[in-house]
Amino acid sequence: MTWNSELVQSTVAEIRPPDDAAMRAARALQDRLTKPQGSLGMLEDVSVRLAGLARECPPPMPEPAAVAIFAADHGVHAQGVTPWPQEVTAQMVGNFIAGGAVVNAFAGQVGAEVTVVDVGVAADLPAGPGLLPRKVAYGTADMTEGPAMTAGQVRRAVEVGIEVARDLTLAGNRCLVTGDMGIANTTASAALIAACTGLPPEKVTGRGTGIDDTTHAHKIDVVRTALDRHAAPIRAMREQLHDHERVGRALEVLAAVGGLEHAAIAGFILGAASRRVPVVLDGVIAGAAALIVAAVEPDAVAACVAGHRSMEAGHAATLVHLGLHPLVDLELRLGEGTGALLALPLVQSSVRVLHEVATFDSAGVTEKQLDGQQEGSA
Amino acid sequence: MTWNSELVQSTVAEIRPPDDAAMRAARALQDRLTKPQGSLGMLEDVSVRLAGLARECPPPMPEPAAVAIFAADHGVHAQGVTPWPQEVTAQMVGNFIAGGAVVNAFAGQVGAEVTVVDVGVAADLPAGPGLLPRKVAYGTADMTEGPAMTAGQVRRAVEVGIEVARDLTLAGNRCLVTGDMGIANTTASAALIAACTGLPPEKVTGRGTGIDDTTHAHKIDVVRTALDRHAAPIRAMREQLHDHERVGRALEVLAAVGGLEHAAIAGFILGAASRRVPVVLDGVIAGAAALIVAAVEPDAVAACVAGHRSMEAGHAATLVHLGLHPLVDLELRLGEGTGALLALPLVQSSVRVLHEVATFDSAGVTEKQLDGQQEGSA
Repeated sequence: MTWNSELVQSTVAEIRPPDDAAMRAARALQDRLTKPQGSLGMLEDVSVRLAGLARECPPPMPEPAAVAIFAADHGVHAQGVTPWPQEVTAQMVGNFIAGGAVVNAFAGQVGAEVTVVDVGVAADLPAGPGLLPRKVAYGTADMTEGPAMTAGQVRRAVEVGIEVARDLTLAGNRCLVTGDMGIANTTASAALIAACTGLPPEKVTGRGTGIDDTTHAHKIDVVRTALDRHAAPIRAMREQLHDHERVGRALEVLAAVGGLEHAAIAGFILGAASRRVPVVLDGVIAGAAALIVAAVEPDAVAACVAGHRSMEAGHAATLVHLGLHPLVDLELRLGEGTGALLALPLVQSSVRVLHEVATFDSAGVTEKQLDGQQEGSA
Repeated sequence: MTWNSELVQSTVAEIRPPDDAAMRAARALQDRLTKPQGSLGMLEDVSVRLAGLARECPPPMPEPAAVAIFAADHGVHAQGVTPWPQEVTAQMVGNFIAGGAVVNAFAGQVGAEVTVVDVGVAADLPAGPGLLPRKVAYGTADMTEGPAMTAGQVRRAVEVGIEVARDLTLAGNRCLVTGDMGIANTTASAALIAACTGLPPEKVTGRGTGIDDTTHAHKIDVVRTALDRHAAPIRAMREQLHDHERVGRALEVLAAVGGLEHAAIAGFILGAASRRVPVVLDGVIAGAAALIVAAVEPDAVAACVAGHRSMEAGHAATLVHLGLHPLVDLELRLGEGTGALLALPLVQSSVRVLHEVATFDSAGVTEKQLDGQQEGSA
C-alpha cells in the first residue's frame, strides 16, 4: 500500500524547524517594550513562537484569519457511542452554511472567514456557496471491524486539507483556524489519542458532549476493541523503527482508527506549517489530528497554537504530549472551531505587541532603578 | 465627615438586583440553540448574567466598548515598595496618549476606544486630546502615616469615575472596561483586599510585576502597618453595624488605604451598574476597587465580568470573594486594562450567541434521541 503522495511528500519536505535567531530577536524585543519584563506571560511565548515560525521578527500579523470546518461521518457510529443520529452532521453543515451555528457567531465576532468542507459526510449535500465539495467517502468504515479508511481515502483526505490551507493562504489569510463537525468523532479522537500517546482508553475516552455512564463505558469498550484490532500498525508507529517510513506509519494509524476530518485537519496543519502560517487548533478533534502530524513531522507542531482546553477527556493529555499550552479554558465542549476562534484575538494581540508597542527608549519612559530581578513592579 | 455625595447616593439608588426572569429566559434560550446543552461552559453563564443585568433577553450586544485608564500616584511609594520611580506614572500616561503602550495595542485589536483619566498623577500633565484632566490631588498621602485621602478627595474621585462611566455610555458605548496606571498601586490594592476580605497581608501582598524577596517582605510590613493604623474604620466596615451607613463606612476604608484610581474605578463600576452596562474588570487594582463596590452595594457586582486572573497574590482570593470567574488566565501581571481587553471578545461572543444562533427548530436540526442526561454528544 502507498500511504504517501507527491503532494504530502513535497508539503512535509517544505517544513523547517523554527528559526532560533528570530525567536531570540522576539524575546529581546519583548524585553525592551514599555512594560515590566515578562508581564505578558504566555502571550510573550506565543509571539516568540510565531516569530520562529515566520523566521522573522516581528512576524506578520496573523490576520486576516479563516476557519475551515471539515465535516465527515464515522462508521463507528453504528456501535451506539452517541445519542445523536448521524444525519445531524449533514444538518449542522446546512446550519453552518446558513450562518446559524455558534461557529458562525464567533467567527463574525472576530472577523474570521468561514469555509465548510465536506470531506466525508454520509449524505449528498446540495451544492451552493460556502460549501467546498471534497467528499472522499460517505463516511468512514467501522474501525472495530477493520480500518476506518483505505490508503487511498486517507491520502486523499490529507491532500484535501493541504489544498484548503494552500487556497486560504493564497487568498491572503495569515492565520488558519481548525474546525470540525462529525457525529461520533470524539470516539475516533479517543482512539487516535490512545494510539499516539500510549494512554489507556479509559483515560482518553470522554463523554463527548455528555453521555450517561452506561454509554460512556460502552464507548470505552469500543475504543479498546479498535485499538486491539489495529495493535500492529499502532505499535509500528510508536516504535518508529525506520525514520524514512515515519509518514506512512502515521498515516496507516490514521487510516485505521481516525476520521476523514482528522485526516483533512492533519493535512491542513501540514499545509499551514509548510507555508509558515500559524494554525489555531480547536479542541480534542484537532488535537488528535495534531498528534498524527507530530508523528509525521514534529517540526510542524511549531505552527500550532492551542486555542483552548476542552472538557473532553484526553484533550489535556494531548496538549501535554504536543507541548502546547491552551490560551482559553472555559469548560467548552462544542467543537466546530469555537474554542479556537475565541483564542484568535489573543494570538493576534500577542503579535500586535511586537509591531506597535513603544520601547523604553523610544517612549522616554524610565526603567526600574534596582538591579537583580529581571522584573519590575508597579 | 461626609463621605457620601448627592451623585454617589443617586447612583447607588439606581442600582437594581439582576432580573430573574431575564436570566431564566437566557438560560432557556441557550438550551434551545443548535449545540449540546451547556457546551459553551462559562460563556453561557456570562450571557445569562448580562441578561439579568440588562433585564431583557437577549441583552444588548456589549459593543462598542471603551476602556478608561485611571492614572494616579501613591504616597506609600515613599516607603520603598517598588523599584520603579514615581515619574513612570506620568511617563506612561504620555505613552498611552501617544498610542505606544500594550493597552493601546490590545484596544486596537478588539476595537475598543481608549480614554486616559488623570485622577491623581503627581505631576502636571500637558493638556491634549486623549487625556481627561480630572486631577483630584497630586497623588495620595502615605497610608502608613494617616489616611491616604481626605473625605473630599475620595468622594470627588468616586464622582469622577461615575461621570466617566456616564459620559462613555452616553457616547454610545455598551460595554466598559477598567484600566489603571499608578506606580505602587499594588501596595494599596493589597491593603484594600486585606481590609475587605479579612485575609492577612502576607496572603494578599504580591510582588507587583516582580520584586525581590527583601522588597516583598518590606512591602508586606508596609501593608500591615497601614492596616494596623486604620484598624478602626476597617472593623466598622466589616461588621456593618448599621446598614444605612454602609456607603460611608466603605468609602472611609477606601480613603484610608486606597488610591485615587481605586476610588475612580469604584465609581466607574457603580456608574456602569446604575446604567445596566457591563463592566469588564482588569486585574488586582480593579478587583480591589470592586471589593469596595461590593461593600457599598452588593448588587453592583452583577454588572462586573472578571476579565482575567492576574499573577498578583490576592487577586484569586479577590475574585472568589466577589463570586466572579475569570475568563482569561495567561499569567499576566501588567495592568493598564490589558487583561480585561483580552477578555472583551469572549464577553461579546457570549452574548452574540443569544442574538444569532439558530434553534434546533428553526434550523431543522434533529435533537439527540436518548432521554436522561441533559447533554448530547458528538
